[in-house]
Amino acid sequence: MTAVLLLSCPDQRGVVAATAEFIAAHDGNIVHAEQHVDPGADGSGAVFFQRVEFELEGFGLDRDEIVDAFAPIAQRLGMHVDLRFSDVPTPTAIMASKQPHCLYDLLTRWRSGELPMDLRVIVSNHPDHAAFAAHMGVPYLHLPVTPDTKAEQEVALLAALDEHGVELVVMARYMQILGDRFVAARPIINIHHSFLPAFVGANPYRQAYDRGVKLIGATAHYATADLDEGPIIEQDTVHVTHRDDVQRLTARGRDLETIVLARAVRAHLEHRVLVHGRKTVVFS
Amino acid sequence: MTAVLLLSCPDQRGVVAATAEFIAAHDGNIVHAEQHVDPGADGSGAVFFQRVEFELEGFGLDRDEIVDAFAPIAQRLGMHVDLRFSDVPTPTAIMASKQPHCLYDLLTRWRSGELPMDLRVIVSNHPDHAAFAAHMGVPYLHLPVTPDTKAEQEVALLAALDEHGVELVVMARYMQILGDRFVAARPIINIHHSFLPAFVGANPYRQAYDRGVKLIGATAHYATADLDEGPIIEQDTVHVTHRDDVQRLTARGRDLETIVLARAVRAHLEHRVLVHGRKTVVFS
Amino acid sequence: MTAVLLLSCPDQRGVVAATAEFIAAHDGNIVHAEQHVDPGADGSGAVFFQRVEFELEGFGLDRDEIVDAFAPIAQRLGMHVDLRFSDVPTPTAIMASKQPHCLYDLLTRWRSGELPMDLRVIVSNHPDHAAFAAHMGVPYLHLPVTPDTKAEQEVALLAALDEHGVELVVMARYMQILGDRFVAARPIINIHHSFLPAFVGANPYRQAYDRGVKLIGATAHYATADLDEGPIIEQDTVHVTHRDDVQRLTARGRDLETIVLARAVRAHLEHRVLVHGRKTVVFS
Amino acid sequence: MTAVLLLSCPDQRGVVAATAEFIAAHDGNIVHAEQHVDPGADGSGAVFFQRVEFELEGFGLDRDEIVDAFAPIAQRLGMHVDLRFSDVPTPTAIMASKQPHCLYDLLTRWRSGELPMDLRVIVSNHPDHAAFAAHMGVPYLHLPVTPDTKAEQEVALLAALDEHGVELVVMARYMQILGDRFVAARPIINIHHSFLPAFVGANPYRQAYDRGVKLIGATAHYATADLDEGPIIEQDTVHVTHRDDVQRLTARGRDLETIVLARAVRAHLEHRVLVHGRKTVVFS
Repeated sequence: MTAVLLLSCPDQRGVVAATAEFIAAHDGNIVHAEQHVDPGADGSGAVFFQRVEFELEGFGLDRDEIVDAFAPIAQRLGMHVDLRFSDVPTPTAIMASKQPHCLYDLLTRWRSGELPMDLRVIVSNHPDHAAFAAHMGVPYLHLPVTPDTKAEQEVALLAALDEHGVELVVMARYMQILGDRFVAARPIINIHHSFLPAFVGANPYRQAYDRGVKLIGATAHYATADLDEGPIIEQDTVHVTHRDDVQRLTARGRDLETIVLARAVRAHLEHRVLVHGRKTVVFS
Repeated sequence: MTAVLLLSCPDQRGVVAATAEFIAAHDGNIVHAEQHVDPGADGSGAVFFQRVEFELEGFGLDRDEIVDAFAPIAQRLGMHVDLRFSDVPTPTAIMASKQPHCLYDLLTRWRSGELPMDLRVIVSNHPDHAAFAAHMGVPYLHLPVTPDTKAEQEVALLAALDEHGVELVVMARYMQILGDRFVAARPIINIHHSFLPAFVGANPYRQAYDRGVKLIGATAHYATADLDEGPIIEQDTVHVTHRDDVQRLTARGRDLETIVLARAVRAHLEHRVLVHGRKTVVFS
Repeated sequence: MTAVLLLSCPDQRGVVAATAEFIAAHDGNIVHAEQHVDPGADGSGAVFFQRVEFELEGFGLDRDEIVDAFAPIAQRLGMHVDLRFSDVPTPTAIMASKQPHCLYDLLTRWRSGELPMDLRVIVSNHPDHAAFAAHMGVPYLHLPVTPDTKAEQEVALLAALDEHGVELVVMARYMQILGDRFVAARPIINIHHSFLPAFVGANPYRQAYDRGVKLIGATAHYATADLDEGPIIEQDTVHVTHRDDVQRLTARGRDLETIVLARAVRAHLEHRVLVHGRKTVVFS
Repeated sequence: MTAVLLLSCPDQRGVVAATAEFIAAHDGNIVHAEQHVDPGADGSGAVFFQRVEFELEGFGLDRDEIVDAFAPIAQRLGMHVDLRFSDVPTPTAIMASKQPHCLYDLLTRWRSGELPMDLRVIVSNHPDHAAFAAHMGVPYLHLPVTPDTKAEQEVALLAALDEHGVELVVMARYMQILGDRFVAARPIINIHHSFLPAFVGANPYRQAYDRGVKLIGATAHYATADLDEGPIIEQDTVHVTHRDDVQRLTARGRDLETIVLARAVRAHLEHRVLVHGRKTVVFS
């Protein structure tokens, strides 16, 4: 069992030493440490980011004492601190529409132990995946949407996520646009089926076909109020040829979508992602 | 030694048989045949594309008799016919600005026999590569450009290409925008340092850095009057991370640019590319 | 609906024309044709391979007349002929041991219509996947193996495959070695979790870790009596680093295994694979 | 200008803090720090590796005082210490045989400033590249080899490397096997044209063709007395098909070789590689 500190602050001398000393002073053993300095842009100063993971066994502080004990250092350096424990998986909801590939893939990975998430509920605007959710033993919330009920559905959705104590939402090809209140409530990871910023919006495989590109892509990003403009976590592409019509592009893209989304979700669940403006720092 | 027929026509029954019979009737041996049917869009009909390569040894017609002998078939089927010979490399000019990587890479490949081109001249708006061109034994034409001399320079450039009998222009990171007359004169392969259609225009690595993408790309395409909108021949991408600043993106991108451009140039020189509207068919 | 001819014969003049003429003579419309000539080795002659796909609608012969009508041509040219129809999916069995990822992935693709297979039965030496098979509506045959019952189990297995009319076996991480009789009975596609020929045999991820490689791979191949020596259909690799211990290599490899196996199975089911000695021709 | 500390020692508590405190105590600013713990095998204990890069400007010690000041910490923790400066490029020799692609590629990268090496001499058993070396302004040493003069040539080679103060040798497709004394003298980076451990030894593209693999690879590694068994620094692969004969595999492999070798050389020159037994730790 380990603790993970995700830290960010204005870049300054001694910042690496301060945290390392704190952990050493309490007999901690660091198993992973990685840092990054973003130079900043347009006169804003450089920002320091760090992920430090240390063993809880033998550590001189109880879990609930760590934040308070670290507070003087954090205050002095102007640090934003996020503390996580490897044995406390993040309460998560997965949302999907009709297409099953990303949803099924995440469930299979979760079941095999590959994704450390505390999966609380699956939400869909379609009833299609209820039997599979039952087979997997996960509550399934069917919330249909029509243009008339959109606002209501979002209220019900937010209430359900609150009720289930959800801290992370994964949109596994959920095809409804969500309101600002929803986007602001908690981190949402979305998968878009193109290499953003190309082919923003609807039907990216059709757009890709019409443009005659020689590769297609997928992008996992945090959802923000501006559609497809949120911080990118993970992207990948695959070669295609003139033989690939829209249907074949769609089929080939499915593999990309599932893998890119799974990588991004895993990075988030392993507390390896820090957001910086509209960019991310993803530690290895 | 082989002959290559590049054919396109409205899709219709018997079109494969007609060409195969013609070659068989003259004792030809087909060493490579590949076809593609584009379904067409918006009511335009399906279009058939084919590349047929056959041995000249033992073929019953002389080189200069083939087009005439094939004409009745071509006429009946409404075919566009392009006939090439593997031992007649395409007269080519390479254009470059200050950056050497694509130019040097093409020259090295040409020298090693990997690119079947008849390299007639290197043109640059800078004098930097003259010594290397001399070392390689290729004429070097230094045509400086200023805002005032742009029109004149283009006239001189076109005259030089005509004089050298150039049939293909490769823009190996040539950073000047060219006029419609130049673009219309002969095929031009350009390399753009992004995965088009993302990051059109200037400074794509800066654009990529500002957007926080997790991969960068390169695109080789035929130049058209609309900048960066021409038919794409080849694209590729490579993963990058938050550690890669604009300078490192630029360095990593150089490898992509050279390889993507070289692949596209080779495909063209091997007569494997057919243009269809704003798309390409690239046979393997 | 289309028919697919998979052809192979000694390379000779007129072979492309003969087939094209046959199809044209019966008013067939070729929608895809691809060919390959293997130069042969050690004095064996060149071999011609072709895949021709044509529309059944409007074709002048009934399905069961095609082989007979084509027989004179096949005989004259010494052709091996395999005729398939796009609306007759191949009767298939999937075999798996404890690990679910390849099995679940194939089932998800099959359910979504991506894999044109007539899935007759799932066979496993473990009971673990019975509930999921039931959920998917596929018969599940649990055939436990012990060293003492190995021979018996294989007899039961062969009988079950015969009874279900199985023409293709997919070993989706089935970890038992099978006898020569089993291997000879019908095509078997196996997935090996390394880039063959590296890391043959047991525990390839452990072998990869011990060697300190910077990439891991997966290989889908036809099973033969010589373990891991059969004709390769598809391979891929992914980068790894010094941070990846055996457990992480195994986790990262799972994605590769599922995708590489799925690609190979799809190629086979779409009748795009021809075996030539210990190699394959895989048309696009 | 920065200093780089490459550290390794038995894993123990406080090791990260000790180095960070040392740098902070002398007013150093850490710009990059990365660490790795290898768990060890077969009862050997865990080993800690770290790369720390800090700014020399404002640092409280002169360059030649750093090692002595750090010695007490290094001694207490049993550390192996390697100190490098970003403005002191490594004295390097490149060796090549007939094939030019890796040599030319490295020279082009060096000339463009991408590779921070102090290139002292090019050595070849062929005279072919003398003109290009002269064009680039690098001394060229032509040392022909015959079976009779092999021992002599190696003596001359070692003397030349000593005379030029060479600390790193890059074998850019140098096709002669070298003796133990040569291998032991200084680090040697070699490029092998396969994904090791597959296709060890001669003619790997021929071996790959005969096996019918669907991808080819390249491996950059430190040379050791056991041919092709040294610690791997970098590997990559590219897809190939049944169409690729040995000649085409060789041509496609050239791109891989140049890129994989260049990446490995750059990692070494940027002091990002630590050797651990027959493996490497390559920091990002």
